[in-house]
Amino acid sequence: MSENRINVTDLAEQLLGPYAELRKVSRARAARPELQRDPLLGMDEQRARVLSQLGILVEEDAVQRAFPTKFGGHDDHGGSIATFEELVAADPSLQIKAGVQWGLFAGAILHLGTEEHHAKWLPSAMSLETPGAFAMTEIGHGSDVAAVATTATYDEDSEEFIIHTPFKAAWKEYLGNAALHGKAATVFAQLITKGVNHGVHCFYVPIRDEAGDFFPGVGGEDDGLKGGLNGIDNGRLHFNNVRVPRTNLLNRYGDVAADGTYSSPIPSPGRRFFTMLGTLVQGRVSLDGASTSAAKIGLQIAVTYGNQRRQFNSTSDTEETTLLDYQRHQRRLITRLARTYASSFAHDGLLDKFDAVFSGRADSDDDRQDLETLAAALKPLSTWDALDTLQECREACGGAGFIAKNRFTQLYQDLDIYVTFEGDNNVLLQLVGKRLLTDYAAEFRKLDTGAMALYAAKQVGNTALHRSGLRSVGQAFADVSDERKSANFFKDPANQRALFTDRINAKVAEVANALRAAGKNPAKSAQAFNDNQELLISAARDHGQLLRWEAFTAALEKVSDPVTAEVLTWLRDVFALSLIEDDLGWFLANGHLSMQRARTLPGYLNRLLARLRPHAQDLVDAFGYTQDHLRADISSGNEAERQDEAMEYFRKLRASDNAPISEKALKKASA
Amino acid sequence: MSENRINVTDLAEQLLGPYAELRKVSRARAARPELQRDPLLGMDEQRARVLSQLGILVEEDAVQRAFPTKFGGHDDHGGSIATFEELVAADPSLQIKAGVQWGLFAGAILHLGTEEHHAKWLPSAMSLETPGAFAMTEIGHGSDVAAVATTATYDEDSEEFIIHTPFKAAWKEYLGNAALHGKAATVFAQLITKGVNHGVHCFYVPIRDEAGDFFPGVGGEDDGLKGGLNGIDNGRLHFNNVRVPRTNLLNRYGDVAADGTYSSPIPSPGRRFFTMLGTLVQGRVSLDGASTSAAKIGLQIAVTYGNQRRQFNSTSDTEETTLLDYQRHQRRLITRLARTYASSFAHDGLLDKFDAVFSGRADSDDDRQDLETLAAALKPLSTWDALDTLQECREACGGAGFIAKNRFTQLYQDLDIYVTFEGDNNVLLQLVGKRLLTDYAAEFRKLDTGAMALYAAKQVGNTALHRSGLRSVGQAFADVSDERKSANFFKDPANQRALFTDRINAKVAEVANALRAAGKNPAKSAQAFNDNQELLISAARDHGQLLRWEAFTAALEKVSDPVTAEVLTWLRDVFALSLIEDDLGWFLANGHLSMQRARTLPGYLNRLLARLRPHAQDLVDAFGYTQDHLRADISSGNEAERQDEAMEYFRKLRASDNAPISEKALKKASA
Repeated sequence: MSENRINVTDLAEQLLGPYAELRKVSRARAARPELQRDPLLGMDEQRARVLSQLGILVEEDAVQRAFPTKFGGHDDHGGSIATFEELVAADPSLQIKAGVQWGLFAGAILHLGTEEHHAKWLPSAMSLETPGAFAMTEIGHGSDVAAVATTATYDEDSEEFIIHTPFKAAWKEYLGNAALHGKAATVFAQLITKGVNHGVHCFYVPIRDEAGDFFPGVGGEDDGLKGGLNGIDNGRLHFNNVRVPRTNLLNRYGDVAADGTYSSPIPSPGRRFFTMLGTLVQGRVSLDGASTSAAKIGLQIAVTYGNQRRQFNSTSDTEETTLLDYQRHQRRLITRLARTYASSFAHDGLLDKFDAVFSGRADSDDDRQDLETLAAALKPLSTWDALDTLQECREACGGAGFIAKNRFTQLYQDLDIYVTFEGDNNVLLQLVGKRLLTDYAAEFRKLDTGAMALYAAKQVGNTALHRSGLRSVGQAFADVSDERKSANFFKDPANQRALFTDRINAKVAEVANALRAAGKNPAKSAQAFNDNQELLISAARDHGQLLRWEAFTAALEKVSDPVTAEVLTWLRDVFALSLIEDDLGWFLANGHLSMQRARTLPGYLNRLLARLRPHAQDLVDAFGYTQDHLRADISSGNEAERQDEAMEYFRKLRASDNAPISEKALKKASA
Repeated sequence: MSENRINVTDLAEQLLGPYAELRKVSRARAARPELQRDPLLGMDEQRARVLSQLGILVEEDAVQRAFPTKFGGHDDHGGSIATFEELVAADPSLQIKAGVQWGLFAGAILHLGTEEHHAKWLPSAMSLETPGAFAMTEIGHGSDVAAVATTATYDEDSEEFIIHTPFKAAWKEYLGNAALHGKAATVFAQLITKGVNHGVHCFYVPIRDEAGDFFPGVGGEDDGLKGGLNGIDNGRLHFNNVRVPRTNLLNRYGDVAADGTYSSPIPSPGRRFFTMLGTLVQGRVSLDGASTSAAKIGLQIAVTYGNQRRQFNSTSDTEETTLLDYQRHQRRLITRLARTYASSFAHDGLLDKFDAVFSGRADSDDDRQDLETLAAALKPLSTWDALDTLQECREACGGAGFIAKNRFTQLYQDLDIYVTFEGDNNVLLQLVGKRLLTDYAAEFRKLDTGAMALYAAKQVGNTALHRSGLRSVGQAFADVSDERKSANFFKDPANQRALFTDRINAKVAEVANALRAAGKNPAKSAQAFNDNQELLISAARDHGQLLRWEAFTAALEKVSDPVTAEVLTWLRDVFALSLIEDDLGWFLANGHLSMQRARTLPGYLNRLLARLRPHAQDLVDAFGYTQDHLRADISSGNEAERQDEAMEYFRKLRASDNAPISEKALKKASA
């Protein structure tokens, strides 16, 4: 088999993506024990440890990349995300607490503030002299930021804003750094001046003095123990008519003059709101990458163990079967390996897009909207996949998977909330769905509606959906004759693409038609929207999967080694076909696959998995994490040693005629 | 709506099942804080706390039910399981540590030992004077118990057994009570006498002295922190030629005379092995029940919150939408509510069967095998469903779901390993699959093989599968005309049953035919088996779901209140149809559903969910847990209070002409 192995070195380099060198530096950092999680620490100790780890990051110039060069940064937005993401290998709490401090808190100052604010607050935020909370979410308004109820009312006499929490549901909630360490907060509130509400704006509000006590009017609570990420001191904040100077309004997108006059470079309140929130997309981008990394770590551990561990003897009386030789084990791990590869390649594209927008290389309104949609489509898939993959790895390693030092449970617990924060996955997918619908409807209006039949939306797919990242269908769904073998059909990328594209188009068209039928009555329209919520969210999910499929397919073209290219093509096919299998009912019910073809799919997929099985170890090794990152007992080689020792024992037993038991007798007796 | 509400009181009583009174007593105990988990405790404190809680259980006569009356027990096997299961509401660690001590350790003495052993060791095991470990699993042999490598070699001279661990993979592993508290262990080892191995037997082996130090030759390690269940001191044990008296062999199913002669009431080694292991089925039964209880607790919390929490305003400018009014939220929670009901009713049947076998009322070989198959089919479904349900509840409650005191994450972490221990879910399902295959093949041999076409297995279904718990198909799959409405088709229980039954039969037939085609060559046969492993496991899963469907359907007949009966019938339909939707591709590809009918299924399911939505609170309240069991902040009514306060604020604001902001303006400004 050796001559048919993939080129792990080259593939590893490709997987590191456009920021390979920065990732290596960050991974070297994540390999150091003093930056890693100690699972035996209690909450208080864990919080203190992570705070001190943030200090190490500052000392080592590890957090400054995204900031302006004049403050010691590098103006490197994509590189900054890549650097932070890799911290997940050390400790997700470290990654997220760094994200709170430099991505959210300092990021709000950078992106929503102006020169004066940068000069005044960025240095101390960057140096961690001022740990800060990002006070956006409220108890009563988790995802609906536009409806936050905290008010910032301008007082012309004192030239101050009065920050106020009108009721308990308006308490700011789940804020990292709020329970203990935060000295200031960037607070999102409804800006009211001269009796008019101008919508949500962000204010810099000091919250604690040097001794760590709340300033007058500021209060809060500790969220206490969480399901994971206990290195972060999440908490609640509330404000009782707290006054801050007028200039504490982060005024890049909206300002109030001394006399109380409001002004903004963006006249539309809606667009202003989304522009301000758009600066937060970096959180979603980095969760997408970190989740993918965590899935890689889980798979590298589980595949290594599955390649060493033996259980039951199926074909031999004396040799037990290696776990990964079982079909079910291949199903469990290799399908998820395929998804993780897809996620990894898709993330590189997202990071490119992010860097283009944030560096200003390509930051038109359309670019920004595309970035938003791309992040909103990919973050849900990768964060859910990380949990699914870590859990399956945990179970595939049996009892050993449950031991904390084998990592799965700890990573799962820490990553659990990734599906909720920085945009709840279901809410994000609904945003993607609305975008698909808007793009579709814009095209739809230009067409003769009489010609539009349900399930026929694919005819407009080429132009209608490309703005959201969809490429053209390339070719219409081919009605392939029965003679052509199913396997050839399924492995043809044009067919894979057509199936995915048609599915999105048809679902979006179905929702659009239902909305059209409901007419313009707001109650009926809202009802129709809700009646199709599940379908629209599923279209959005399909859209994200298509983006991943395209990224995976594009990555294949960059592989020069023929064996690697062939193996990765099988893996891409597994990715595509397992998705089709998951939704086989839809493809059949809507006439995109024949019964005959559908029946061959599971078997073909199983054969692909068996073909990939000898390459599984190389494919996870190409992720490039070392035992310093994996740190699991079961990825250390201990299991192989134990297996060898046991086999040696039985070998000696077989060789000895006087052995009191033979291995075969031993097994037969209990069979 | 009030006159159309279900009868919660009666339904609650029905859900408590055949051991209602014992469950109430156990629930009252689980409501007491001193028996509950304190999530802030570290591992060492948690272990100590749970040990002391076991002492409370002993004092209160809460652990003795399954034991003989002459030792102060009640000879009540089903009641004992029901009692233990409910402890999960207090703390899963308490449930499992009690299970280790009284179900496994004392259970091995009771079921595998004889009178002398009972008299000698049961009292101290029951009183917790001797905490014990159940030393079956080995590092190298988790699920393959027949292959354990620990040996017990009889020494005629000293009339002792020599317990020995030949290599590291044979260390006993993951044993509760092994790391700290255990004073003795029931050790499973290959019994060797006169140079012959008679297979796995169980031995009573003292492991620690009064001071807590290992006896000479005994060693071990602490498994340390786990993903959950940290109230239990799991660890490893190994034995270096440790001698125990001949009479420490628990000799109910196999004995060695003083001169080394082996004897057994069960001549076949294979049957002997399975008879001994069969006594362990109670663990699976109680995990099935406890998992269902945990899912109930999760749903009761999440539905309560989903009924109070509001987010976004869809149909009104001023009123936000309650979460459970969103279609997606209904999909997430109500489909899982239906599964939990099915699981609850199925568990009652399992408990009946268990009690019949263990009480001796009906304990033929066939009864025992049916019990094994039933437990092996249901335990995987309920333990996986519990994790799936708890995770979905966690996510459906957003950030609040991640706070430890809201329970989901803690229950998830503790229940995670339920899918692995007491029989790994995939291994159990494979056993069920093999049983289905055996039953099928037995029938198969009597038939003209030439008449057997693939996918035509339903003709033999009535007789072939009933021994595994399948009832007759009742009626053949009806080829309903297109005119009949799809909804009528889907809600007809005969059709639901036929779809489920046909699916199992067809899958089993497909595997059987593949095995037959492979012939008798062992390597080819093993390969064919492995090539169909995924399919066979999926048939086993389908079988378990059919058993649940039958239990749910049977339970409907016991409901007298018409509104309750109607609502529960919708819920049963949701259970059935969401399963069919999950595997829609199979039903279509194999000709069991038409495309037209399949396309109507998601919409019909959504309408059923909307119809059930007003009853969701009543349906979870009928689970009967109180806030003392739920203990979540978000199930306490706090959320409703917060929402009321906020609405009152906006109401006053609207009433005041001089208000600086109107709620509407506030919302519009950011829209």
